[in-house]
Amino acid sequence: MVTRLTDSPVYAHLWATPELERLLGEQARWQRWLDVLVVLARVQARAGVVPEASARVIAEAARVERIDWELVAEQTRRTSHSTLGLIRGLRAVLPAGVREHVYVGATVQDLTDTWFGLLMRDVGDLLQRDLLAVEDAALRLARVHRDTPMAGRTHGQPGAPVTFGLKAASWADELRRHLDRIGQGRSRWAVGQLGGAVGALAFHDVAGVDPVALRREFCAELGLADPGISWLTSRDRVAEFGWVLAAVCGTLARIGGEVVELQRPEIGELAEPTRPEAVGSITMPHKRNPEVGEHLDTLARLARSSAGVLLEGTVALHERDGRGWKAEWAALPEVCLLSGTAVHLAVELVTGLEVHPEAMRANLDRFGDRLASERVLGALSVRIGKHAAQELLHELLAPTSGAPADAGDLAQRLAERGIATEAEVREWATRSPVRSAGAMVDAVLERAAAVRTAGEGTAP
Amino acid sequence: MVTRLTDSPVYAHLWATPELERLLGEQARWQRWLDVLVVLARVQARAGVVPEASARVIAEAARVERIDWELVAEQTRRTSHSTLGLIRGLRAVLPAGVREHVYVGATVQDLTDTWFGLLMRDVGDLLQRDLLAVEDAALRLARVHRDTPMAGRTHGQPGAPVTFGLKAASWADELRRHLDRIGQGRSRWAVGQLGGAVGALAFHDVAGVDPVALRREFCAELGLADPGISWLTSRDRVAEFGWVLAAVCGTLARIGGEVVELQRPEIGELAEPTRPEAVGSITMPHKRNPEVGEHLDTLARLARSSAGVLLEGTVALHERDGRGWKAEWAALPEVCLLSGTAVHLAVELVTGLEVHPEAMRANLDRFGDRLASERVLGALSVRIGKHAAQELLHELLAPTSGAPADAGDLAQRLAERGIATEAEVREWATRSPVRSAGAMVDAVLERAAAVRTAGEGTAP
Amino acid sequence: MVTRLTDSPVYAHLWATPELERLLGEQARWQRWLDVLVVLARVQARAGVVPEASARVIAEAARVERIDWELVAEQTRRTSHSTLGLIRGLRAVLPAGVREHVYVGATVQDLTDTWFGLLMRDVGDLLQRDLLAVEDAALRLARVHRDTPMAGRTHGQPGAPVTFGLKAASWADELRRHLDRIGQGRSRWAVGQLGGAVGALAFHDVAGVDPVALRREFCAELGLADPGISWLTSRDRVAEFGWVLAAVCGTLARIGGEVVELQRPEIGELAEPTRPEAVGSITMPHKRNPEVGEHLDTLARLARSSAGVLLEGTVALHERDGRGWKAEWAALPEVCLLSGTAVHLAVELVTGLEVHPEAMRANLDRFGDRLASERVLGALSVRIGKHAAQELLHELLAPTSGAPADAGDLAQRLAERGIATEAEVREWATRSPVRSAGAMVDAVLERAAAVRTAGEGTAP
Amino acid sequence: MVTRLTDSPVYAHLWATPELERLLGEQARWQRWLDVLVVLARVQARAGVVPEASARVIAEAARVERIDWELVAEQTRRTSHSTLGLIRGLRAVLPAGVREHVYVGATVQDLTDTWFGLLMRDVGDLLQRDLLAVEDAALRLARVHRDTPMAGRTHGQPGAPVTFGLKAASWADELRRHLDRIGQGRSRWAVGQLGGAVGALAFHDVAGVDPVALRREFCAELGLADPGISWLTSRDRVAEFGWVLAAVCGTLARIGGEVVELQRPEIGELAEPTRPEAVGSITMPHKRNPEVGEHLDTLARLARSSAGVLLEGTVALHERDGRGWKAEWAALPEVCLLSGTAVHLAVELVTGLEVHPEAMRANLDRFGDRLASERVLGALSVRIGKHAAQELLHELLAPTSGAPADAGDLAQRLAERGIATEAEVREWATRSPVRSAGAMVDAVLERAAAVRTAGEGTAP
Repeated sequence: MVTRLTDSPVYAHLWATPELERLLGEQARWQRWLDVLVVLARVQARAGVVPEASARVIAEAARVERIDWELVAEQTRRTSHSTLGLIRGLRAVLPAGVREHVYVGATVQDLTDTWFGLLMRDVGDLLQRDLLAVEDAALRLARVHRDTPMAGRTHGQPGAPVTFGLKAASWADELRRHLDRIGQGRSRWAVGQLGGAVGALAFHDVAGVDPVALRREFCAELGLADPGISWLTSRDRVAEFGWVLAAVCGTLARIGGEVVELQRPEIGELAEPTRPEAVGSITMPHKRNPEVGEHLDTLARLARSSAGVLLEGTVALHERDGRGWKAEWAALPEVCLLSGTAVHLAVELVTGLEVHPEAMRANLDRFGDRLASERVLGALSVRIGKHAAQELLHELLAPTSGAPADAGDLAQRLAERGIATEAEVREWATRSPVRSAGAMVDAVLERAAAVRTAGEGTAP
Repeated sequence: MVTRLTDSPVYAHLWATPELERLLGEQARWQRWLDVLVVLARVQARAGVVPEASARVIAEAARVERIDWELVAEQTRRTSHSTLGLIRGLRAVLPAGVREHVYVGATVQDLTDTWFGLLMRDVGDLLQRDLLAVEDAALRLARVHRDTPMAGRTHGQPGAPVTFGLKAASWADELRRHLDRIGQGRSRWAVGQLGGAVGALAFHDVAGVDPVALRREFCAELGLADPGISWLTSRDRVAEFGWVLAAVCGTLARIGGEVVELQRPEIGELAEPTRPEAVGSITMPHKRNPEVGEHLDTLARLARSSAGVLLEGTVALHERDGRGWKAEWAALPEVCLLSGTAVHLAVELVTGLEVHPEAMRANLDRFGDRLASERVLGALSVRIGKHAAQELLHELLAPTSGAPADAGDLAQRLAERGIATEAEVREWATRSPVRSAGAMVDAVLERAAAVRTAGEGTAP
Repeated sequence: MVTRLTDSPVYAHLWATPELERLLGEQARWQRWLDVLVVLARVQARAGVVPEASARVIAEAARVERIDWELVAEQTRRTSHSTLGLIRGLRAVLPAGVREHVYVGATVQDLTDTWFGLLMRDVGDLLQRDLLAVEDAALRLARVHRDTPMAGRTHGQPGAPVTFGLKAASWADELRRHLDRIGQGRSRWAVGQLGGAVGALAFHDVAGVDPVALRREFCAELGLADPGISWLTSRDRVAEFGWVLAAVCGTLARIGGEVVELQRPEIGELAEPTRPEAVGSITMPHKRNPEVGEHLDTLARLARSSAGVLLEGTVALHERDGRGWKAEWAALPEVCLLSGTAVHLAVELVTGLEVHPEAMRANLDRFGDRLASERVLGALSVRIGKHAAQELLHELLAPTSGAPADAGDLAQRLAERGIATEAEVREWATRSPVRSAGAMVDAVLERAAAVRTAGEGTAP
Repeated sequence: MVTRLTDSPVYAHLWATPELERLLGEQARWQRWLDVLVVLARVQARAGVVPEASARVIAEAARVERIDWELVAEQTRRTSHSTLGLIRGLRAVLPAGVREHVYVGATVQDLTDTWFGLLMRDVGDLLQRDLLAVEDAALRLARVHRDTPMAGRTHGQPGAPVTFGLKAASWADELRRHLDRIGQGRSRWAVGQLGGAVGALAFHDVAGVDPVALRREFCAELGLADPGISWLTSRDRVAEFGWVLAAVCGTLARIGGEVVELQRPEIGELAEPTRPEAVGSITMPHKRNPEVGEHLDTLARLARSSAGVLLEGTVALHERDGRGWKAEWAALPEVCLLSGTAVHLAVELVTGLEVHPEAMRANLDRFGDRLASERVLGALSVRIGKHAAQELLHELLAPTSGAPADAGDLAQRLAERGIATEAEVREWATRSPVRSAGAMVDAVLERAAAVRTAGEGTAP
């Protein structure tokens, strides 16, 4: 039963994508669990633990569409055991002689942690692919707007010019670090789990079987790394993955927030792509809201929250700790859905972003000399010293009342004091503020190009 | 589509109850929203905004089973607007002459915040009812075990005796404060919202209509308080509700944690109720796990996490802030489900709790004189001074190696030093440690009885 | 040694106030602890536990300036015990015959929890006083600007008019709820603790002494409520206090955020008070930053974080749990300092806030007809139906490209379609949008006046 | 002034170490900031921005002991500017001709972010060194106790045997992943910042100067990496560092929690090292508390909380966002202190850990056959099938009442049913449960040895 608004068919598109539903949805998850059991039977057959024939029959039968899920649910509630319902549902579709050969020697957490490993691998790959696309779009903006000047704003206040390219390059630079993190973390989180009751693999410790080798094969067959040692209460893997995803969301929320603020009509420098059918408001027909930008922030808040739960889970007890583990059942899929949705939206947002260089220019002009204060300060510093210049300009420019002082006559005032000619000041103020910005954009572009050439960091 | 493990039909019983599903489930939520629109039309009809006849038709038509939800979903995705799909679905089931009279003058947030008000009222009532039941069960335990001695443990180490009644009374005492909080907060969170586009009620500000009076009636008709002023970005109401629920979960997790630890077979003083069908482990057939106790901790972690999101939402901007608001869409229902489930489980746990006084006694005896150290200290203090006594007993009893020093001969050692006779020491050590514990239990019982007599704090 | 940047003498004014330092500073805290021990001796003397004369000597000697704090520190490190160092330092300043009569029968947590009770009482009172001042300032703004129209903004976008008075009244409304919470919670958190080793008061359970009565007197003498039962691991009191403080910070950050955004020179509707000596930037001499507004957000983030730690502490174990308790040592004083500083800054900010009605008017005019879309919609709804009107206006006004469509000719276009005359549309568009806003402001003002008349909610 | 309990001279040893104080303390921080300004002047001299002679004079004068810090504090409060007080204090100790050549062209954040880079580098190195020591100690325990059997516990309940070596190897395995994370992250967080007003380096963009090259030299001279592009609002670096530190604390809290629980005298398998002077309790002289284990949990809670603040800081706005940045001022040093203290305590704890194999053996014997249930299940599975065996053993062993069923006669009961002889069952039950555990320990030891041989991951 759908009880969460986020799973409502009417709103699910805000909290998941069809691709994520194919990875994490009810059916997909069960099939994944069944697949793990199929692989378990296969490697056990090779090791002589179960008959080869049984493993083949299990592989055919373990299909989500064949299981009676109402029975599974009923037996789960009845036994209070997480997978005994599944076992009974699965046994019901197997011939009598095979029923004893499924789900042998594994504990619930072997199944769910291995699923976690698969999930972290696949969602990691999906994020990597989409983050590359966001990075591509940001790099394109950086290239196109390498020399598009706009007001740099600190504490919300226009300060000195930057370029839009510098802003976009800063996004790309940050995204690249996330891609590096995903690449580096993969071997830690794309691992399987097979430890039995308490992680000691004692069930499989019977004549002729090498339990550690069996686990290695089990992992390999699933496309996962072997963990070397059971990690039942060693949850840093899951916590790290959750953090990386939440941090990715943070970056995307930063991009989104930039759009939300710069789309204010009073500023008007950026705008989200829109569609004719979209309706911003039913009470204010003129509205066009920066919905994606805001929603990226929403997703980031929730992702941080889930990542916090996963980090708390690192403090686990003994050989299994149901408290943090069950919290992971809720929090890990959640952070996957939130971040997968966020990066999907971000691809659209950054790719389709409307940039208004003319508005950027108009805002720069509007604040005139004031935005040149850093450059005038730089030039005056050579003449009268940095701090003397700072004090002088503070005196001339500092806003002492609500409305900032009019700075239009800065050149005139400096000339009156005999410190510089008006022409000099005007030259300083109009000198390009963005030479170094361009160089920084180029550095980011070059590094991204080099990574692409090397074939590293590309989507799997 | 079910994408969250917590909504899986197989596991949903761990994360919701049937009653909560009836409050928060997909169908129930839509019907609630429709009910709000029905009330809106009704009070608007009274004010002459829409025809009386239309209001009656809307009341009949606005049934969840009549709406084409696929159309609603499709139109929602198409327009990117949260309720335009709903409006179109609703108009489709209305006769032509009535279609213009539904969902008039309200913005999306009027609908969802009013739903929040209803939800907070109803989930608050549900919690109040179930918390009373947990309190009742804790009070019963406190009464029955008023004089059942057991080891008090600090930092996990047996320290000095308490009674189990004192422990249970401490639970009841804490639960009572939560009941007080729910009672005091109700008038803050069981409120409606009707503000229109930006909270100024301008839509309704037409000839002959008193918008503020209309809102008052709207709230009254729904059984909610009138907020006095729009609270579109004043989210402390929602944040407070979320915190109270998470704090309730914290208390229940404290109770659960006590059971988990004292059910360790090495201690064996408490045990969760169990059922014959329950299976603790599929790899260790002998296991009986304190599942409920652990799960209360799991629920509390997740509830804290959602409450944190709601608290962050208090920092909202201007007249509507989609960032925190949409996060509430996920976090408020979530914390309702988590805490409602927790208190439901806690009723079972505390009501059915197995208490083993003989194990409590055995553990007390096992640590013997050591657990009497506070009483011997008290008696010796009178004779040789508190700090002198503390230093002497530290010398005689302090564990200097892994295993604590044997304390069996404390009486003998004190006698050897001529400080007290063996008989005296034995008398001190066996004196009841729990006289004051009993008095504190009585105080909690009396207060609870007084509240019940006064009819306050009882379930609605 | 000062290791935290927040305690640096250079920056401490950002993270505390002199008044808070007098409550929470090193010397003040120790004196408070000593005061608690003085009261303990006094009530114990009355009960015959220690001699009256000793209690008097202790009261004279227990002065922070008399203790050798280096000795205390050295003995604390040496014994690994939280207050044995203090005991030894205190005994060193007492005559031999009195040394055994200080700090008798209490455990560390009795001392620190009672200090917590005093702290929560006093910081609560301080917050109440300053919140009242912020409320006063907000009420004044609401009254003065009851009819000052400005753009209401949703999702950062100008939507429809509100008044600045409505905004300020919404602040006052939210602050009032916090004042109610502080008033209601006080009896839960301004309590003492005296339980001895494990909360059972066994130490004092000697002939002739009524331990429970002794605790009652101990609390009363300190101006605290008696808890009825030990609350060593019942930490909801502390968690609630922390939440209320963090929620207060959230509200103040909301106010601060409003100022930060509306102080953007592109908007220019509000501005923080400033002083001539203040320097916004050393690299951009023209800058005037909304520092207080931003800092309120900073303080709120950190306060939420500490409140989260306190909430986690509700899940405590057995009769003392050092894990959460020691975390409270850091988090409770922290949240007191952060929120006390925030409310102090907020008094300045809201009291001195610069409001620019002319800029508000100019921004309203700038977006012209579009901001009247809700009112035109309301009027057109009467004529052609709400949803028909919504669709028509969406068609005429919806922004389909980067820059919103020019709406200047809305009247003309509607006239062309024969739906309304130009004059009608102009009349609708210019009709006061703020009649109900004024009524809501009045409601808030009246309630606040009523509370003040009743003498409730006033500063202690 | 010391206002935080954590900075009290009496308790500071719980929240910092002398080494951390030397890195983060008031004096050390100011000297670090001054050192950064010295390097700035030096590279500016090389680029011709300031005279070489001035740079030399600055290097001599910029000593923390020469500055008048009261003046700095007073000027900081007066100007409301974070470093103008410092500038004035610094200028006061410079000859007139040099005063204009200090702190040229850099903004506050250039200074504080570069300090962050140095801090992250140095605290990262310190953690790496101490984590290696904890890993060494864990590896030693794993080697010594490779074959020491003990009860594996799931959900707090003894389940099946593990070895203590397996537990210790799991700690080492997790610590190794943290060491890898620190190694991989270093190049992301040990970077400098030099961007000027808005990150565009415009101040330095004067004739003859290459600002980007100047920044590169500045970073290199400080032993930091060049960031390539300004990262004023790109805070993932700081957030990642904070997370890694909090995750390290989580692992140490896991180790500590294991000790706390297994030191319960009812279990008695592990114990913290202790010293004769240590006093566990002043009211219960016999107490020996697992203080370090608990305190590791306390530190982890607080570290998570600070890491959460840093993660939230990734959502930063425009070219500088005071909200998150100032929160970092509190949270980054805090998480450094907490984690540095935690790892220091962990070295002591794990190095000195008392292990009681005889208690481990006694507990195993106490639960007898029940702990062999997984092995008997494994053997019976071969004979009658896995699930049939599970059901049979569940029937024979499942606890249906408070106390678990006596399992002593499992062999007899199985024999009665003709499924296995008593001798067979006894042989299965006593078969070593830990063959695979040993292999997993070996794998962890070998990998750690390989890393050490390769010289990777060793302390800097």
